[in-house]
Amino acid sequence: MRLWRELRESTSGGKLVRPQLVLAAYEGLGGRRAESAAFVAAAFELLHTALIVHDDVIDRDFVRRGRPNISGRYRDSASSNGANSRDAEHHGMSAAVVAGDLALFYSYRMIDLSGVDEATRTPLLELMDEALFASAAGELLDLDYSGAVAIPTVDSILEMARLKTAVYSFEVPLKAGAVLAHASPDVVMALGEFGREIGTAYQIVDDLLGVFGNPDATGKSTTSDLREGKRTVLVAHAAASELWAQIAPLFGSAELSDGEADQLRHALDASGARVYAESLLAEHVGRAQAILGRDCIPGALRRELTPMISELVSRQR
Amino acid sequence: MRLWRELRESTSGGKLVRPQLVLAAYEGLGGRRAESAAFVAAAFELLHTALIVHDDVIDRDFVRRGRPNISGRYRDSASSNGANSRDAEHHGMSAAVVAGDLALFYSYRMIDLSGVDEATRTPLLELMDEALFASAAGELLDLDYSGAVAIPTVDSILEMARLKTAVYSFEVPLKAGAVLAHASPDVVMALGEFGREIGTAYQIVDDLLGVFGNPDATGKSTTSDLREGKRTVLVAHAAASELWAQIAPLFGSAELSDGEADQLRHALDASGARVYAESLLAEHVGRAQAILGRDCIPGALRRELTPMISELVSRQR
Repeated sequence: MRLWRELRESTSGGKLVRPQLVLAAYEGLGGRRAESAAFVAAAFELLHTALIVHDDVIDRDFVRRGRPNISGRYRDSASSNGANSRDAEHHGMSAAVVAGDLALFYSYRMIDLSGVDEATRTPLLELMDEALFASAAGELLDLDYSGAVAIPTVDSILEMARLKTAVYSFEVPLKAGAVLAHASPDVVMALGEFGREIGTAYQIVDDLLGVFGNPDATGKSTTSDLREGKRTVLVAHAAASELWAQIAPLFGSAELSDGEADQLRHALDASGARVYAESLLAEHVGRAQAILGRDCIPGALRRELTPMISELVSRQR
Repeated sequence: MRLWRELRESTSGGKLVRPQLVLAAYEGLGGRRAESAAFVAAAFELLHTALIVHDDVIDRDFVRRGRPNISGRYRDSASSNGANSRDAEHHGMSAAVVAGDLALFYSYRMIDLSGVDEATRTPLLELMDEALFASAAGELLDLDYSGAVAIPTVDSILEMARLKTAVYSFEVPLKAGAVLAHASPDVVMALGEFGREIGTAYQIVDDLLGVFGNPDATGKSTTSDLREGKRTVLVAHAAASELWAQIAPLFGSAELSDGEADQLRHALDASGARVYAESLLAEHVGRAQAILGRDCIPGALRRELTPMISELVSRQR
């Protein structure tokens, strides 16, 4: 089926964070059934695929990471078949809705195909529910925030990002790996907390890279977040500073020039938002490290997860 | 969660065809575990909900059966909160994508929650795969056909409708009820064939009602199919007749007046398309009845399903 091929091609090249976390937790806790773990890891990658494909539908995006996404690919082939641009876009978005549905369905199916026994399957399925529900709630909050004129607080933004992305990307894959390894409840809980801290740290790094990153490394313009008026930790902090009066008129302007974006970047820096975000990042990283130091965390698991923290903090894309 | 409430309210009032078919097959084959059957029946209703909610996203519809659908409800509340019409529509469609995802996920989850043993769960999940895959393929075919200038053949249209709707609405629910009742493979297969016949019959009735029905009973204008240029059995047959030269210029015209719609309706009738559709309907009904007459079908099952055929043929909406 062409849709599967396009789905694979347009979503490949990701970092496979979620499967890695499932496997790291599982192997760090002594799990040895590689095949079951691979299915569970795949379930989270497919869940991610489904959510980003549908997220692109929601945002009417036809490009992801500089390449046409599913909508873009189907739009382009409808265009070459003679459709006008409106119909071609409609065709593209429709294919993406269907593709996301298939990926979502299959993500669930993977848990069954993993062949785990019922005592493991039920909590795994509950974790997937938790992941999807959180993401749905986060998506709706995101819509509310981006529609509102007021800038939400730092805490609201981080909670939204946590629900929309971090729960299904960090907390739940780690917990799933632990459940699969038959870990005790305190280990499962500790991994959830650890996932929450690194998920928050990841989001803060994302916000920093989006404004102060190197576009050559990130593959993403440092103007687009500012032009779209994206609600980030930086902006939330700056909104409470004296410099906000300088920032507000330009922030979210669709015609923002590169020069104005530079101005905004300087003002965000001068407002203390950058330093604030960096110290908040350090705080969450410190908490993540502290959790790995707990007695309930076996040495092997600590060795699996510690390098992930530094990779995350030093990432350039 | 508001989304669940809106989902329930905006999709209630359906005919519950799919749960009824699951239960009819299950009970007709001597199944006695009402609770398991209810979960499996609910799985198909949720699958239907997910697919129609996403289908409305694909068609950019904000109304279903004369009431605001999920997109319509969220669009309206975004409007009352001050969003402009473009943003409000975007908000509505986004909520519908998320709502459909939740429904789809839960449809799958219902199979697990039904508590059936593994030997039954695996074929049930495979049937749900078959249902979703067929629907995805049908949705993509539908897009291709509606984008193309040429009118597809009657067989192509019926195959598209079968894939998009009838497999998940008729064939698979019946087979699922049989699998749940531990029926033999020939019964499962016969029910699939029966579902295919009544699904095709249902589609033909739909096409007839869409042009020749009573709008007060159907709750649907008899102009909209003609105005949208919907590819139906009637149109496919007429396209091969001499009268097509009269029909083609008006068919699919967005500004079609009621008078012109009457003209089209008369031309379709005069072309023999109506009589053709009615005889094709009778043919499929006859085959459905013949399948119920097979030796492998127990009397109780025959008694459950026979009234459904006549309800289907005589339905006015």
